[in-house]
Amino acid sequence: MRIVVLTGGIGGARFLVGVRAHARRIGAEVTAVVNVGDDVRMHGLQICPDLDSVMYTLGGAADPDRGWGRVGETWVVKEELAKYGAEPSWFGLGDKDTATHLVRTTMLNAGYPLSAVTTALCDRWQPGIKMLPASDDRLETHVVVDVEGERKAIHFQEWWVRYRGDVPTHRFVFVGAETAKPAAGVLEAIGNADVVLVAPSNPVVSIAPILAVQQLKEAVLDGPAPVVGVSPIIGGSPVRGMADRCLATLGVEVSANGVAGLYGARRDNGLLDGWLVDTTDESANIPGVTTRAVPLWMTDEDKTATMVAEALRLAEELR
Amino acid sequence: MRIVVLTGGIGGARFLVGVRAHARRIGAEVTAVVNVGDDVRMHGLQICPDLDSVMYTLGGAADPDRGWGRVGETWVVKEELAKYGAEPSWFGLGDKDTATHLVRTTMLNAGYPLSAVTTALCDRWQPGIKMLPASDDRLETHVVVDVEGERKAIHFQEWWVRYRGDVPTHRFVFVGAETAKPAAGVLEAIGNADVVLVAPSNPVVSIAPILAVQQLKEAVLDGPAPVVGVSPIIGGSPVRGMADRCLATLGVEVSANGVAGLYGARRDNGLLDGWLVDTTDESANIPGVTTRAVPLWMTDEDKTATMVAEALRLAEELR
Repeated sequence: MRIVVLTGGIGGARFLVGVRAHARRIGAEVTAVVNVGDDVRMHGLQICPDLDSVMYTLGGAADPDRGWGRVGETWVVKEELAKYGAEPSWFGLGDKDTATHLVRTTMLNAGYPLSAVTTALCDRWQPGIKMLPASDDRLETHVVVDVEGERKAIHFQEWWVRYRGDVPTHRFVFVGAETAKPAAGVLEAIGNADVVLVAPSNPVVSIAPILAVQQLKEAVLDGPAPVVGVSPIIGGSPVRGMADRCLATLGVEVSANGVAGLYGARRDNGLLDGWLVDTTDESANIPGVTTRAVPLWMTDEDKTATMVAEALRLAEELR
Repeated sequence: MRIVVLTGGIGGARFLVGVRAHARRIGAEVTAVVNVGDDVRMHGLQICPDLDSVMYTLGGAADPDRGWGRVGETWVVKEELAKYGAEPSWFGLGDKDTATHLVRTTMLNAGYPLSAVTTALCDRWQPGIKMLPASDDRLETHVVVDVEGERKAIHFQEWWVRYRGDVPTHRFVFVGAETAKPAAGVLEAIGNADVVLVAPSNPVVSIAPILAVQQLKEAVLDGPAPVVGVSPIIGGSPVRGMADRCLATLGVEVSANGVAGLYGARRDNGLLDGWLVDTTDESANIPGVTTRAVPLWMTDEDKTATMVAEALRLAEELR
């Protein structure tokens, strides 16, 4: 069995821990197609927050409390950069992380595509699944905001890390999406998939930038595999992160129903065949999408694996 | 009074501490023209060991025991790079140093010349003198060696840090010297100098790469200022570093006389008007060069400043 997961953010990374656990039990192969919209070049380093979150989480090296970056991280480089007055100073650049970014940037500058670089980095982390960036091309999420009385587009990282999303926000723009191609291996993975899972990631800034790659989106929509999504909203609140702020910007209700409506039913040229919601949200009802309610709190690997088993069961029914 | 110092290496950096001290007493301006031959790009970072040695030493942040890099340095980035198997692994890349290299590399990649980058970095370190790289262009010292039965050219850093100079060594090559121009401000500083001092740096790999910039060399040789060198050899041994290995490669005697002969007398189209040697070497005698013997051990700032005063006195007599 071949499972493809569209994923991004720390919620997506934790979901993958459960996918891996369940896949090991049933002998399935897993390919994660990871959001690159958060990627950013800072201090000359190419930083890929979502790829790193997945890699560190599956590699057992993620910081569980902070929710991003490496456990046991130190901050000498960041402190020194600040002493030089180097901007931006608001970004959390850890020393361990810096080494990852140096290796990545050196390989990218030498001409390797991000997908090959990711494979090389995973030699160390052994995530136990295949990790692919959505695209090897530049695709960055920018946010149109009002800051100090001026309307401008800032990088998603600046919006979230610097401003905590707490500025008047008008829309999200996926810079480069028009020309970005799926990374090497992505179309093959989707074409050969038995099921496509949409992780309980932020629909607006983790999943949407993946689907903004037109050929990738078409491969999913036109592909053979049923698509089952897992709701990132439980009882009106995001499991974690800022999905509520992002959905509000789009005028979408912060609910399992709201997100499913945003994704759309596949029969209506949308994304979803099936939709897994929390038991709190069992009244969810989206025309054309088969909904199932199960406990969705990813409190540990076993509970997450059980969620995944439910998603696969739903997919099996929808095949 | 305007003093120009040709310098490189940690010996040169310590000499500058004395130059600065004496210059403050007499109200002189100091410009250091610093070797860039050791510069190297590693892990995507542009590293300038001699500029950094001078900057950190004059900024009071150099590690006095190790002889290079920052005091209180940590090594997380280096350890992490090694865990990725990133080469080269033999280079001492400290975390604090990494921040310096990131700022420098980002500015260089944005198009600033190395001289402007150095000025920007010095905003933080306030070295109290003007620091200029010998050239803004790429000029790297490579070493022709036999390694594992093969003759090849390796970067000076690899020769020194990785092999400790302990491989069959044939010659030093200054890659890029034919086309390298003096950095912005260098010709003006030399043309306006009242004296040019040659620091007790390694003549082969610190001073020679500076003079390999043809216009820079001509400016010194044809300029108005007397040139006084300070011997890096005391009683047959280098004050520190690997001048002995380098001189041996060139077939030059490891002595104050040997180095002065390598530099040559200015009247014979060489470099030196005057030559300061240690009292141990008072028998030194180079035709056409006025030699003076004074204590040359740079044990503290005061003793070094006294050396500098002697060098300036000699220059004054030679004007």
